[in-house]
Amino acid sequence: MTAIQPANQSGPIGVFDSGIGGLTVVAELQRKLPSERILYVGDTARVPYGGKSPETVTRYSREISNLLIEEGAKMIVVACNTASALAVPTISEEYSIPVVGVLEPGALAAVRATRNGRIGVIGTKATIGSEAYSRAIRFFNPRLHVHSIASPLLVPLIEEGLFNDEITEAILHRYLEPLLQKGIDTLVLGCTHYPLLKPIVRKVCGQHITLVDSAENCAVFVQSILTDTHSSRSNSRLDILLTDTSEGFLRLAEKSLKLKIDSLNIRNIGH
Amino acid sequence: MTAIQPANQSGPIGVFDSGIGGLTVVAELQRKLPSERILYVGDTARVPYGGKSPETVTRYSREISNLLIEEGAKMIVVACNTASALAVPTISEEYSIPVVGVLEPGALAAVRATRNGRIGVIGTKATIGSEAYSRAIRFFNPRLHVHSIASPLLVPLIEEGLFNDEITEAILHRYLEPLLQKGIDTLVLGCTHYPLLKPIVRKVCGQHITLVDSAENCAVFVQSILTDTHSSRSNSRLDILLTDTSEGFLRLAEKSLKLKIDSLNIRNIGH
Repeated sequence: MTAIQPANQSGPIGVFDSGIGGLTVVAELQRKLPSERILYVGDTARVPYGGKSPETVTRYSREISNLLIEEGAKMIVVACNTASALAVPTISEEYSIPVVGVLEPGALAAVRATRNGRIGVIGTKATIGSEAYSRAIRFFNPRLHVHSIASPLLVPLIEEGLFNDEITEAILHRYLEPLLQKGIDTLVLGCTHYPLLKPIVRKVCGQHITLVDSAENCAVFVQSILTDTHSSRSNSRLDILLTDTSEGFLRLAEKSLKLKIDSLNIRNIGH
Repeated sequence: MTAIQPANQSGPIGVFDSGIGGLTVVAELQRKLPSERILYVGDTARVPYGGKSPETVTRYSREISNLLIEEGAKMIVVACNTASALAVPTISEEYSIPVVGVLEPGALAAVRATRNGRIGVIGTKATIGSEAYSRAIRFFNPRLHVHSIASPLLVPLIEEGLFNDEITEAILHRYLEPLLQKGIDTLVLGCTHYPLLKPIVRKVCGQHITLVDSAENCAVFVQSILTDTHSSRSNSRLDILLTDTSEGFLRLAEKSLKLKIDSLNIRNIGH
């Protein structure tokens, strides 16, 4: 963990996601690293990534990483489970600055949390189809059982702000029932949108299931890297670049996550 | 209607959509024009368009139209309500071949269908936000009342194949109840995905509401143009280009719509 040396101590932490969901990671980073500058890119012109192919998600991730490096980022946080699963293994080899995904920190937290060895994972089709969580969890402990289910309707429901709605609850019941029947005691929320559903997931799962929030665990991991290598003392800032206008959900996220946004710009990427 | 002269009588009809929903238009075109070649482009790498800005949707539509013209298309059918609402007024001025959207044919069919003068419209956020249907309907008859509601959750439900599901029914109730309370007698299905929901929409609306299917009306309009200007006698074919792999829903659409696909290729666009 300490072998990685960020290149430019005064640069911002570059964070990106397919859209706005990665702001849950930003909120955790601001909580844990209040003096850091953060530059967030949300690829709202091509959102969502969750149903797209590894080749396409890797191409998009590379384009955004190049932009973040041009803007002086000292590290890249891939605040999107789909891109973490499909693109991070490839692109992390291509850059000299650290590229941190949300997937391994979440997998490790789940391994630490489970008592009965049965872990459930929910995520997008691409994340679940990649089996990246199963592999990461079994890498840490091959004896654990991982039960995964793609839950593609959750992101659209969250983007509609239906955090606490009977329709969301009915859909969650359908996704989670098969996992609960397998006797899981730990559930990985394997998409950076999902922390916004924590209260209703808790209601559907009951109190005995440990919820693993990939946003929070990713922030802990970033903190450990920056603490090891002397974190910057620049003034805290949050600058947001979107690839298309996306006012509605951005305001919702700002309110739900209590984010203070210093600047918001729109920029085309990828052509 | 007869003033438009397709450039190349032997070329295919170029059809495009943000994804796979536009295949409902293809199915209608094949039914009405069985001897035509069709080249379909589904922008699955950037799907959906329904929450994106007019600038972005116009840029994407222009890129795809250029590709269709390079492939020799004799006309362009924009089989996407969002692109029809946001991009067709601009791009139709830029090309010498006809560019036909789904919006005006649907609006005209609704104007003809209504008896009490109250028309409901459902569509994506971008389509409804543009007020293009209201404007088109009032252009044909300024005395009509148009009641619109954005129904952004329907496309994800359709792409999951939940055509006949109690969750889809609950969501439809929520969207349609306010329109039914306004006393509409005609409902425009203002998204090319929605014809796949016709049976369940019928169940929620009751038998007394006329459902206007933009796919079907668009095909009638295309037929009228080609009949006026001597349609081709080439062998019927359906070639599909997608900008990303999208096997799942494509197979679903093929089955639901009984399409015979002659070739399927993946091609990058827009960079």
